[in-house]
Amino acid sequence: MPSEQVRRGGRQARRQARLAAPAVSLPTLVRNIPVYEVLDEEGVELIHDASMQILEEVGIDFRDEEALTIWREAGARTEGERVYLDRALVMDLIAKAPAEFDIHGRNPDRTVRVGGRNMIMVPTYGSPYVLDLNEERRYSRLEDLNAFHKLAYLSSALHMTGGIICEPVDIPVAKRHLHIAYSALAYSDKPFMGATTARERAEDTVDMAKLVFGDDFVDKNTVMVSVCNCNSPLVWDATMLDAVKVYARHNQAVILAPFVMAGASTSASTVGAVAQLNAEALAGVAFSQAVRPGAPMIYGNFLATVSMKSGAPMAGTPEISLMSFMIGQLARRYRLPWRSSGMVNGSKLVDAQAAYESSMTMQSVLLSGANFVFHAAGWLEAGLTASFAKFVLDAEQMEMYYRFGRGIDLSDLGDAMDAVREVGPGGHFLGTKHTREHFKDAFYMPELLDNNSFEQWSVEGANDANARGLAKAREMLERYDAEAPTLDPAVDEALKAFIGVREAVLPDEVA
Amino acid sequence: MPSEQVRRGGRQARRQARLAAPAVSLPTLVRNIPVYEVLDEEGVELIHDASMQILEEVGIDFRDEEALTIWREAGARTEGERVYLDRALVMDLIAKAPAEFDIHGRNPDRTVRVGGRNMIMVPTYGSPYVLDLNEERRYSRLEDLNAFHKLAYLSSALHMTGGIICEPVDIPVAKRHLHIAYSALAYSDKPFMGATTARERAEDTVDMAKLVFGDDFVDKNTVMVSVCNCNSPLVWDATMLDAVKVYARHNQAVILAPFVMAGASTSASTVGAVAQLNAEALAGVAFSQAVRPGAPMIYGNFLATVSMKSGAPMAGTPEISLMSFMIGQLARRYRLPWRSSGMVNGSKLVDAQAAYESSMTMQSVLLSGANFVFHAAGWLEAGLTASFAKFVLDAEQMEMYYRFGRGIDLSDLGDAMDAVREVGPGGHFLGTKHTREHFKDAFYMPELLDNNSFEQWSVEGANDANARGLAKAREMLERYDAEAPTLDPAVDEALKAFIGVREAVLPDEVA
Repeated sequence: MPSEQVRRGGRQARRQARLAAPAVSLPTLVRNIPVYEVLDEEGVELIHDASMQILEEVGIDFRDEEALTIWREAGARTEGERVYLDRALVMDLIAKAPAEFDIHGRNPDRTVRVGGRNMIMVPTYGSPYVLDLNEERRYSRLEDLNAFHKLAYLSSALHMTGGIICEPVDIPVAKRHLHIAYSALAYSDKPFMGATTARERAEDTVDMAKLVFGDDFVDKNTVMVSVCNCNSPLVWDATMLDAVKVYARHNQAVILAPFVMAGASTSASTVGAVAQLNAEALAGVAFSQAVRPGAPMIYGNFLATVSMKSGAPMAGTPEISLMSFMIGQLARRYRLPWRSSGMVNGSKLVDAQAAYESSMTMQSVLLSGANFVFHAAGWLEAGLTASFAKFVLDAEQMEMYYRFGRGIDLSDLGDAMDAVREVGPGGHFLGTKHTREHFKDAFYMPELLDNNSFEQWSVEGANDANARGLAKAREMLERYDAEAPTLDPAVDEALKAFIGVREAVLPDEVA
Repeated sequence: MPSEQVRRGGRQARRQARLAAPAVSLPTLVRNIPVYEVLDEEGVELIHDASMQILEEVGIDFRDEEALTIWREAGARTEGERVYLDRALVMDLIAKAPAEFDIHGRNPDRTVRVGGRNMIMVPTYGSPYVLDLNEERRYSRLEDLNAFHKLAYLSSALHMTGGIICEPVDIPVAKRHLHIAYSALAYSDKPFMGATTARERAEDTVDMAKLVFGDDFVDKNTVMVSVCNCNSPLVWDATMLDAVKVYARHNQAVILAPFVMAGASTSASTVGAVAQLNAEALAGVAFSQAVRPGAPMIYGNFLATVSMKSGAPMAGTPEISLMSFMIGQLARRYRLPWRSSGMVNGSKLVDAQAAYESSMTMQSVLLSGANFVFHAAGWLEAGLTASFAKFVLDAEQMEMYYRFGRGIDLSDLGDAMDAVREVGPGGHFLGTKHTREHFKDAFYMPELLDNNSFEQWSVEGANDANARGLAKAREMLERYDAEAPTLDPAVDEALKAFIGVREAVLPDEVA
């Protein structure tokens, strides 16, 4: 049967071609749509003034002796752990932080930029559980983390590999950061995220980055972003401050982000919550600039509102959207790159709730002009669970938001008008020259959202989005090896040796 | 066991109290957030000019002799069915349409307003199938339609009852409109939607409204909205034009909406599609004003993009959002109330796809400033299916978008600052006076989105959003009778008599 052989050969050849194709990665999104602003200038100044009053009059705790010394040397007044910051000092310090900077990938093509009109999308972070490929919710392991880093690498609209997407709980706590960094650096070539759970872990992460990028390159360039949360209300603790100091001194970026449960760790007011978290984030950025002027920092927030019935955190609420818009306006007032959270939700499953909540927040984040969209893929259950199905579904959504952010192209109107003239009333556009030229990219065509007929969909298995997401994640992990980024064997060797040396001295149990 | 009796009595009493509570209905949303605009003034004028070129040079077909006569009398040039409209004529005519108007409910408390900063949410429309309370997809029946009208009545953020939410396919086509109107008028007291599938059906609907509202009231006030679609590209057909004429002459509102499959019935270009549908909608509004100057009309669109792979319509794409923003800008340029579509999607199930797509479009519609948000609840499968579960889930989303649209309240900042001063660093806000005063409405608390712990959620049955939606729809239908709106028995009698008279002369089969 020569014809069948030919066909089979053709199919195999196509499959080979697909397998050999390099992973596609979209560059930093340079937004070509306006920002959405809910406050007028007076409103922005009102909230700014409230934040300054908090820092000047209420004060903020820095629970770390070295930090208090740094603050006193910078000219702040301290009383015990309480630091009182004049607005002039805060504004002077934050003005030293760069308004925009690059974050380098070990593949230079993956280098991205934050600040200004730039926007990057970054995976979820820190889940102790996974909803795995068999739809089982269980503690996550290193192999899950490796798999997520592979998926991040293969997802065109995810600009960073992420870091601790899920906790490798099969590794002793004191050693985890080594394997997390290795996983991110080995299985992807996009910029990655560092550990912040202890000073020495931050230092280890920088040392591992130097093995990959070279000492000199890391000293002069930013190759990672780490996230340090303020302990709201108004407390920066020693662990976080240690990480800020290490990364700032090494010129590596830190997201200084209040983790806000609005209503519990803030007042029960959107504007009140924003005034407080602005004070907290600015104090963090100012501190980083007292440590090393010019260190790249990201002003941030993590927003949840609290159910006043149950105390549970809530995502995807209208108040979170409104707060995002306000925070964006403040970040632009301060000319700071800023981070928000994208596809967050409280659902236990990849169901309509997960998507309602994720999308409610994500579109607001896009329009608010966030530069660093954290938790852009995989988040479930208020962050307790990372889902493989949701990771790939969200990653496709990010392609859509990416296109959304590119805005519209008015230059096409003339050609489109020619098509209208050609077709006229009652006609059909599918055959026109204009359509033939534009059909591939005029309208986004999702792969995981099924818009076929009910009959076609039934024939194909009547799958819901979750099932399609799972199948897609499996397919991507199967083809990963054929598209994997190369890593210099000597570098790989050096990383493994470093891990061996450090593991020999780190405890299996944390005291 | 007296204590158990007391408890049981208490529970029954609470249940009685809940059953007796009147249905809560939110008034028209008066938006207190800015509109989002993607075009600058020049861009708006560019598209306006393109639309005017289409009407002047390409022309638009009106496939109805009476309509052509009306156009000629209004001063337009016609060639066969083709009408060429000068921009001056179009602008003169649309300027006669009211910028804002009320739509009256048979309960005056339910009267709503469209145009300007007003926004109302309206159920889905026209599905031949339902995804029923047993999760079966089947042809819809009159009992399903009655149930949807009851749910619309009970949903606080749905401002209208809707009309043909699903097709009662168990009723002969020529008689359906009678039962649809009766269902909407009897089972809810909110404003309703009329039939447009034939001139006599529109007239019957007006006659039935007169039995409820009184002849004089209907002559002087708008009590219903009907939807007439342009047959894109650039064709208004006789059926739709007949309905426009009937309703315009009776001072009843019509949505003049191109049903756009962008890429098939328009060019493969967002700006090209917008220029065309703007021409189509404006021609419809202008025609209505030639019929009766001052008749209340709604400029509109239904947007889907077409998959250039399969030809399937797609919802929830970034291009639809971008088109919504542009259309809003055009509507405001013309000072016309305008309609968009909210929770649209192509999913066959109430899954993550349904919510991703619905939410992607809905938030854009909110921010674009649409006045009439059609398909705000229940839409599934590109409109082919109306889902009970999605109806109530979407209705809750509408409560969230309603709050979103109310914006922020800066006046609260002073009190919130007092709370920050009271709590200070490291404290907790849940016990403060400010929290006690604001906890009930500071943050929206959804009922159908589960933000409890995994353990609590598991104990409660580990249900997904679809299952919770189904349970909620059942619960609402069970309590409907206790909260049903009253209908004067004489009016009910008159409506039934009218239906009897008309059914006697209408055929069971349509030729």
